[in-house]
Amino acid sequence: MSEYILKIKCADEKGLIYRISDIVFKNRLNIQTNNEFVDKQNKMFFMRAELSGELNESEFCGTLEAVLPSGAVVSCAKKTKKDIIILATKESHCLGDLLIKFDSGELNANIVAVIANHEILKSLVERFNIPFEFVSAEGLSREAHEEAVLNVMSKYSFKYAVLAKYMRILTPNFVAHYPNQIINIHHSFLPAFIGANPYKQAYERGVKIIGATAHFVNENLDEGPIITQDVINVNHEMSWQDMQRAGRACEKNVLAKALDLALEDRLFINENKVVIF
Amino acid sequence: MSEYILKIKCADEKGLIYRISDIVFKNRLNIQTNNEFVDKQNKMFFMRAELSGELNESEFCGTLEAVLPSGAVVSCAKKTKKDIIILATKESHCLGDLLIKFDSGELNANIVAVIANHEILKSLVERFNIPFEFVSAEGLSREAHEEAVLNVMSKYSFKYAVLAKYMRILTPNFVAHYPNQIINIHHSFLPAFIGANPYKQAYERGVKIIGATAHFVNENLDEGPIITQDVINVNHEMSWQDMQRAGRACEKNVLAKALDLALEDRLFINENKVVIF
Amino acid sequence: MSEYILKIKCADEKGLIYRISDIVFKNRLNIQTNNEFVDKQNKMFFMRAELSGELNESEFCGTLEAVLPSGAVVSCAKKTKKDIIILATKESHCLGDLLIKFDSGELNANIVAVIANHEILKSLVERFNIPFEFVSAEGLSREAHEEAVLNVMSKYSFKYAVLAKYMRILTPNFVAHYPNQIINIHHSFLPAFIGANPYKQAYERGVKIIGATAHFVNENLDEGPIITQDVINVNHEMSWQDMQRAGRACEKNVLAKALDLALEDRLFINENKVVIF
Amino acid sequence: MSEYILKIKCADEKGLIYRISDIVFKNRLNIQTNNEFVDKQNKMFFMRAELSGELNESEFCGTLEAVLPSGAVVSCAKKTKKDIIILATKESHCLGDLLIKFDSGELNANIVAVIANHEILKSLVERFNIPFEFVSAEGLSREAHEEAVLNVMSKYSFKYAVLAKYMRILTPNFVAHYPNQIINIHHSFLPAFIGANPYKQAYERGVKIIGATAHFVNENLDEGPIITQDVINVNHEMSWQDMQRAGRACEKNVLAKALDLALEDRLFINENKVVIF
Repeated sequence: MSEYILKIKCADEKGLIYRISDIVFKNRLNIQTNNEFVDKQNKMFFMRAELSGELNESEFCGTLEAVLPSGAVVSCAKKTKKDIIILATKESHCLGDLLIKFDSGELNANIVAVIANHEILKSLVERFNIPFEFVSAEGLSREAHEEAVLNVMSKYSFKYAVLAKYMRILTPNFVAHYPNQIINIHHSFLPAFIGANPYKQAYERGVKIIGATAHFVNENLDEGPIITQDVINVNHEMSWQDMQRAGRACEKNVLAKALDLALEDRLFINENKVVIF
Repeated sequence: MSEYILKIKCADEKGLIYRISDIVFKNRLNIQTNNEFVDKQNKMFFMRAELSGELNESEFCGTLEAVLPSGAVVSCAKKTKKDIIILATKESHCLGDLLIKFDSGELNANIVAVIANHEILKSLVERFNIPFEFVSAEGLSREAHEEAVLNVMSKYSFKYAVLAKYMRILTPNFVAHYPNQIINIHHSFLPAFIGANPYKQAYERGVKIIGATAHFVNENLDEGPIITQDVINVNHEMSWQDMQRAGRACEKNVLAKALDLALEDRLFINENKVVIF
Repeated sequence: MSEYILKIKCADEKGLIYRISDIVFKNRLNIQTNNEFVDKQNKMFFMRAELSGELNESEFCGTLEAVLPSGAVVSCAKKTKKDIIILATKESHCLGDLLIKFDSGELNANIVAVIANHEILKSLVERFNIPFEFVSAEGLSREAHEEAVLNVMSKYSFKYAVLAKYMRILTPNFVAHYPNQIINIHHSFLPAFIGANPYKQAYERGVKIIGATAHFVNENLDEGPIITQDVINVNHEMSWQDMQRAGRACEKNVLAKALDLALEDRLFINENKVVIF
Repeated sequence: MSEYILKIKCADEKGLIYRISDIVFKNRLNIQTNNEFVDKQNKMFFMRAELSGELNESEFCGTLEAVLPSGAVVSCAKKTKKDIIILATKESHCLGDLLIKFDSGELNANIVAVIANHEILKSLVERFNIPFEFVSAEGLSREAHEEAVLNVMSKYSFKYAVLAKYMRILTPNFVAHYPNQIINIHHSFLPAFIGANPYKQAYERGVKIIGATAHFVNENLDEGPIITQDVINVNHEMSWQDMQRAGRACEKNVLAKALDLALEDRLFINENKVVIF
């Protein structure tokens, strides 16, 4: 028996679960887990189910689409490790966390390559037998550098691009190449402290908690749909550098958790929000 | 259109959701929210749905039971405020929290009475126009006191009995009168620090977090199914009395949250665990 | 033997602790606890000590000031319950939490009065034998209403004014009457979601954590020095009203904790930040 | 100017701070930060200060000891990176976290070697140019294996031995070789779930939070002085393997935080508790 993950997103209407479970039942599939959510404001229906049994993916999706409202987005795929690509700059805490998990087999993904705009992480990455692609931004316009990065990315096949402290602002053009596929970690609890050096901003505001936010990247800086967030306590004794150091554990955990959810197909983008099952 | 909450607990087998959603659909009911869970270890199926439409509760449950495995527990009831009774001793923080919420209409329940083994809370309770029943334990055996309390309880109709820091150990006989209906707040993160004065135990062990646990009461002290837990940080400067003071906010929040879940019919007892939707 | 709290804030220089402890020792006082902090950026020294023994407060402060840099702010007072006044509007969760604690003697303060711009809380407050002062804002300009409130406040003596969900924006003129004495609870983790209906803002942004912030009030809305903050998790199933309901527990705990710290003389305002011992 | 950390632990008596600050002042040292704590129950005084200036460490300690109660433990040393040794078994999450930090220079320590009772981590460790010492336990009694491990340890100089998921129970004899120098991570919030497979224990008890505890190791299993603890939420959908996976992030953060505190000389062992500055 194989295991599949079924995801459905469509306009809400009466009888959806009945129609879907009818088809699941007639295909002699077992529902291992099942989650549904109706966004009443936007009248949208979301469902994720883990199924066991045997099915032909495209045929099964077609049968479902036939009974669902037009415009329904249906996907069904065997549970497998996905391919991801990582973009980084100089800091190793988020990247290193993923490398260690990858190395032990705990990460539910294959890391196909790491791209960076500095060379400092090269040695670390190559120790894990992962291709390291250095794309210097020096002397290049933002657009020219992105072109070079996109060029490298196009050599690889991947489901998600993970920005593991990639300290470059992306243009809408770049993002448009990988819609809903880029996951970023921002080092503040958004929407507080958008932009540069959030730890310094937090220090100057005198906050008592700092945090991190993992989100899908869209065309507006730090405004994409939020996946996960967490915070840690800080106090008056801490400089902004102390906050930065303390914040790193938060950053890597938040990114790792968001990525785990993505890799298990638990996320739906719903306008500018994320539905998580 | 009315709103109902449907709860189903039964042995797991293929096609349950199909059969249930078929009946829901044929009764022209709208599923507002829907949660399912399969306990694979015990092969049990749990489901909670919020339905809107019109139905005859007992007829509807009967129709469902007819297509479900034998032994299925099905309940369906209109969304309404439930009646609760509160047992307390001397401390007012958990009780007071419920009184304030009751008074503002925020509590999803009617408090039919407060029973206490001390008189100190009488003035507070009566200010909220709630009957206060003083049942002194003085000079009574545990059994005789419980008999007196049960006697008072039998005058009232209620869905849940809430032990809001009721500092008496209950006998299995007492508990048997209200199976799965008694919710207690224990002032530690169970299973640590079972029994008397957990804050003192925590102080003496030198822990860096303390907590609180809301649980259903069964025949074994502090071993009933856990509903909610939370913790707070403590440090070396704190005496056990400081921990006790700090822990009160945790206790009242944990109890309030557990009670909210119970009042919205979100809890299923599954052996010694609680399934929460 | 009496117990005193000594607070010192002055420009930092070498030998401060030596000079202070010399005077403490010569006055035969016992240091029960002692905390110091040097803000290196602003070159400021902060100290709080709990002393036991016998002393003349003003004489003792004078002796200390004589050896400290000019401009030193020194206070020393016996540990006692402080007087506070509460301002509220319609919601009872923060107010009620303080009333319950006051009633049990747990609150380290006397509540001298509650002032509100609506009458809805009158019955609750009066049940606790606390004067309720209704100052309607109807038909009044902001300035005229504040004048009326200030008029009522001037009848009472108090150390802190606690805004327990007082839903009126204060003018700088109002705040100037009670500098560093007004403590507010804002229903978001500042600086996110400044202004009106932060829960709706949070819902619309799709955040996964919401929070609350207690802060001293200064002339800029929601920009005063932050005392305490905390957060809770939210999810895609929650409407903004659900977030508001869930956030109330967070709000009342954050305000209560900030007030406890203020009442124990643990706070120093340091520019736009708060040093907490 | 150099930077030193001064630590003092002695019987409490009047005038200690005066006497200490007198000597600090006369040595023309600047106090950068200063923390004191008096354990009133045990009448013990604890102090940690960061000093800048120039001093002769042993002379300075001697001068202080001369004015402190007999039995005072005084240490003063320049701020430097300490040497640590790591013991591990098969899991790489805690070890890997330290390796990544070490590699980036963020860890305030040099890792002199990793000792393991399995060979699986060899490749990972050697990629970081750190000696890996494999000491198989196969066919050996507990005592014989410990003898072999102690033998390897004796080749290295280190301040702390970090048990990064070293899944061997230590005998009192082993621990006695490194009193107050061994830091362990236990995968539960102690004192709950002492012993083997705490995640399975947690799953079976049906708790709603799980956690991790870093502690100094003493002769009693899982009963040493606790340094740091943290928890994460779990739910009914999680198997004990899910809890184990989720708990790993908690484990590595808790261990890393405890180690940071130890490396900055912020810990004092006070009977079976830890004072943290």
